Amino acid sequence: MPYRSPVADFRFILENVVDYSKVSETEAFAEATKDTVDAILDEAGKLCDNEIAPLNRSGDLYPAKLENGNVRTSPGFAQGYQAIAEGGWIGICASEEEGGMGLPLTIATAVNDMMSGACLALQLNPLMSQGQIEAIEAHASEEIKATYLPKLISGEWTGTMNLTEPQAGSDVGALSTKAEPNGDGSFAITGQKIYITWADNDFAENICHLVLARLPDGVPGTKGISLFMVPKFIPNEDGTLGERNSLRVVSLEHKLGLHGSPTAVMSYEGATGWLVGPEHGGMAAMFTMMNNARLGVGTQGIGAAEGAYQAAYAYAMERKQGRVGGTGTIIEHADVRRMLATMKADIFVARSIALACGVAIDMGNATGSDKWKARAALLTPIAKAFGTDTGIEVATTGIQVHGGMGFIEETGAAQYLRDVRVTAIYEGTNGIQAMDLVARKMMDGGEAAFRLLDEIEAGADKAKTEMPELAEAVWQSAEDLRETIEWLVAQDVTERFAVAVPFLKGFARVLGGHYHLTAALAGDDARKRLASFYINRMLPEHVGLFAHVREGASDLMAITPDDLAV
Amino acid sequence: MPYRSPVADFRFILENVVDYSKVSETEAFAEATKDTVDAILDEAGKLCDNEIAPLNRSGDLYPAKLENGNVRTSPGFAQGYQAIAEGGWIGICASEEEGGMGLPLTIATAVNDMMSGACLALQLNPLMSQGQIEAIEAHASEEIKATYLPKLISGEWTGTMNLTEPQAGSDVGALSTKAEPNGDGSFAITGQKIYITWADNDFAENICHLVLARLPDGVPGTKGISLFMVPKFIPNEDGTLGERNSLRVVSLEHKLGLHGSPTAVMSYEGATGWLVGPEHGGMAAMFTMMNNARLGVGTQGIGAAEGAYQAAYAYAMERKQGRVGGTGTIIEHADVRRMLATMKADIFVARSIALACGVAIDMGNATGSDKWKARAALLTPIAKAFGTDTGIEVATTGIQVHGGMGFIEETGAAQYLRDVRVTAIYEGTNGIQAMDLVARKMMDGGEAAFRLLDEIEAGADKAKTEMPELAEAVWQSAEDLRETIEWLVAQDVTERFAVAVPFLKGFARVLGGHYHLTAALAGDDARKRLASFYINRMLPEHVGLFAHVREGASDLMAITPDDLAV
Repeated sequence: MPYRSPVADFRFILENVVDYSKVSETEAFAEATKDTVDAILDEAGKLCDNEIAPLNRSGDLYPAKLENGNVRTSPGFAQGYQAIAEGGWIGICASEEEGGMGLPLTIATAVNDMMSGACLALQLNPLMSQGQIEAIEAHASEEIKATYLPKLISGEWTGTMNLTEPQAGSDVGALSTKAEPNGDGSFAITGQKIYITWADNDFAENICHLVLARLPDGVPGTKGISLFMVPKFIPNEDGTLGERNSLRVVSLEHKLGLHGSPTAVMSYEGATGWLVGPEHGGMAAMFTMMNNARLGVGTQGIGAAEGAYQAAYAYAMERKQGRVGGTGTIIEHADVRRMLATMKADIFVARSIALACGVAIDMGNATGSDKWKARAALLTPIAKAFGTDTGIEVATTGIQVHGGMGFIEETGAAQYLRDVRVTAIYEGTNGIQAMDLVARKMMDGGEAAFRLLDEIEAGADKAKTEMPELAEAVWQSAEDLRETIEWLVAQDVTERFAVAVPFLKGFARVLGGHYHLTAALAGDDARKRLASFYINRMLPEHVGLFAHVREGASDLMAITPDDLAV
Repeated sequence: MPYRSPVADFRFILENVVDYSKVSETEAFAEATKDTVDAILDEAGKLCDNEIAPLNRSGDLYPAKLENGNVRTSPGFAQGYQAIAEGGWIGICASEEEGGMGLPLTIATAVNDMMSGACLALQLNPLMSQGQIEAIEAHASEEIKATYLPKLISGEWTGTMNLTEPQAGSDVGALSTKAEPNGDGSFAITGQKIYITWADNDFAENICHLVLARLPDGVPGTKGISLFMVPKFIPNEDGTLGERNSLRVVSLEHKLGLHGSPTAVMSYEGATGWLVGPEHGGMAAMFTMMNNARLGVGTQGIGAAEGAYQAAYAYAMERKQGRVGGTGTIIEHADVRRMLATMKADIFVARSIALACGVAIDMGNATGSDKWKARAALLTPIAKAFGTDTGIEVATTGIQVHGGMGFIEETGAAQYLRDVRVTAIYEGTNGIQAMDLVARKMMDGGEAAFRLLDEIEAGADKAKTEMPELAEAVWQSAEDLRETIEWLVAQDVTERFAVAVPFLKGFARVLGGHYHLTAALAGDDARKRLASFYINRMLPEHVGLFAHVREGASDLMAITPDDLAV
């Protein structure tokens, strides 16, 4: 069965679970009414189903290749990219003056989810450009904005992010790429960068690299890092393309998945670049962009999960095996149904968290409210880590539903796992997301989290008449989370870091209870049954997770590296 | 860092956790003394480390290929296989009269674990032969035994199992391969079989296929199935090889992993075969073999987990990133240490379960005791499912420890996940293992399980003085499991099947508490610290799992196939 964008699910969640109407009631997003959003989602769904999804297997079978220093992309990817660009989907959130759609990030999140489900390897390309557009809008000079924004938004040019170096992965501050002033306002960038996603392609006129580098007077560590725009071809004043810059793709990686997305080692050899944001202000500029990028990557996980789920569901509905009634297919086996229900229940949770995070970001931007900004900051690491964990978990369960066929590449089930696996690693590993949650996002003493828990408990109170048992379970889980947070914020950072991952997972479980309960109240019997399944069977996982959290660093850090030797 | 067989871990578990001495005290295994076993493990470890492990990457990079109907194996595999055969490792459990070592299955389990950690794709080959040797010893005529056993045990010939057909996977009874009497005591076998592991190779003189097929008077379903020996070359009376049989490899699968292990579609076109066991007794013969094969596959998961763990540990000990003290490498990050401790703690649990299962099988065989047989039957599905789940879980965590490098194939971390993924599917999916546990293995009303729980609680009582908190937690988890089993055995099979998987996972968690506590009592401080980590942080997962179990079929089977549609 081919991929079908779950447009109805987005509509339901936007309307009933995350209250998107708040966003369209703001002045900033007054045009993004329900009708507009409906039309947008339909249009995006058609593009994903009809033009993007058919490319997924081609990207896997015919990886991007490096030929004479240039990347040749997978068959069909150029046309797929053109369709995305021509539909205006790259600039979905970009300002209308520059040619963007000016839509809320919440809607872009739904579109990115669909596009990721259709073809994750291709979707990565516009995702990178979107991050770059955001960084330029927020930090670049008017000159750079004028030169780059329209081309990036139209999709004529594409963007990349260059952070990582061989010795500087999660520890970005250790980077050694240099930027030396050329005397004319430009800089000469020299150094090697790794893991550069979509570092080159054969369908955009120009590739715009945002590169982190250190100026001669930059101090060691993150405070001495600046951000530079380093284009493949240097634009002339009239906007036409001039000389080839001194940068090159050294090699492409041979990866577990995402074969259609070229991942490069890049060499900058005195390449000409221009400062974006203030000197030594590179990390601040990256952070602006990184938050939304983290939500974007979480959404990739959800999209991949959706694709894997649909494939498993279709297989379970068509495969005959054993003596069963009903459909006569393996979906009648209780364990197959359990797997599918688990997948679907978690996709709903991850999607609701991501869209709630989108709403919080949009509300923060539209109203300037600190409370919304704090909500967005709180939900971002959860959206990223839980979304991508769900992608991996659903993809591996999808293989299991397929039985022996799941191990055969032609089936396509395995590709979802191979493709999505990296999403838990890039844009800040899920461990780093969890550390962000327990440290930076709890610097308010848990205030933003407690506000969210108040809402969850109020929601559970509201549901008590109609579904007393489910409401009670959700209310109790919120209390457990509240007590766990109270304990956590009283600990120093060493204790917190040791249990950050189980804390984040438990937090997501409780959020899931809340969103499922909300859906059950508003939705049809199918929503109610799935909520019951989740709250009775999956929500109780939080008990073990919070027990783990309460252990702090204690017997974990007592284990020595020698203890762990073979 | 190259793979190193964890010989010391096997010694510790055999001596202190699963009480292997019981086995060597029996008459049947009197020769398998501690000294003999020590020497055997050392020898096997050297073979795995020095000759097998170096082939792992070669098998992945240069898959087995089909050329003119014959399989050409990966570079080095022929030599690796010869080393295994010459060491006598194929016949490790086979009777000494036929050239085997006559050792307990417990010891073979340890050896298979090491060999799987070294190279899972190659290890699959002797594993298949071992299953065939077992089936022939138990069910074949003296003539077949005399012809095939010595060759299989010496490794001159290799064996395969042919169960699955396109329409008959988990439901073996649906198979349609036919066997017609030739009138001379032999049969003509006709049909197509899929997923045939190591269906052909270029290093054995002959390939011996055990094929399930239906005689003309065989009733539909499993009761009409018979087992046949169908060799690639038909042996002459003097043991030399005669004419080529009418069977062929149609194609090889393109798989997610295990590229070095050819998985074939086989066609039998009136091929000559001989009955193994009675007419229509094929399933019984398969079942004898399947139990040990299930332990063998569980052990594959553990071995792969060990390989993945060692790679992750080595990377964490050498990779510098961030400002940390101690080793100055990422193992100082709490979350990296948490991941490694989790991996190591679960490998220990899975290995202890597998070796305890081995001891129970050996004791059942050596003493004929029904209690030991029931213990073996109970532990087998847990050993298979938890061992392979652990393989997958540890392999995916191993990728995470590697960060971005984990997604790059050259690192090798991803291969462990690709290779091990199928172990949760073949030899009965883990869902089927769980159904076996809650149905067949609970037909005694839980008696065998309760006996095991008595031992666990007695062990916890014994530990109460030295480590009161850990002992109390283990004791309490055993009580929780006892109550869950009491509830479970009062339900009908529909209720049980719906929650079979969380039940098996929770059961394994409780067993893990017991084995870690036992290890902590007998072992050094490193064992104590790991036990504390497991019991405080991982054992509590059983609470959520048993809560899930108590839901029975209720709101799961209420979810309709339509509910699950996109």
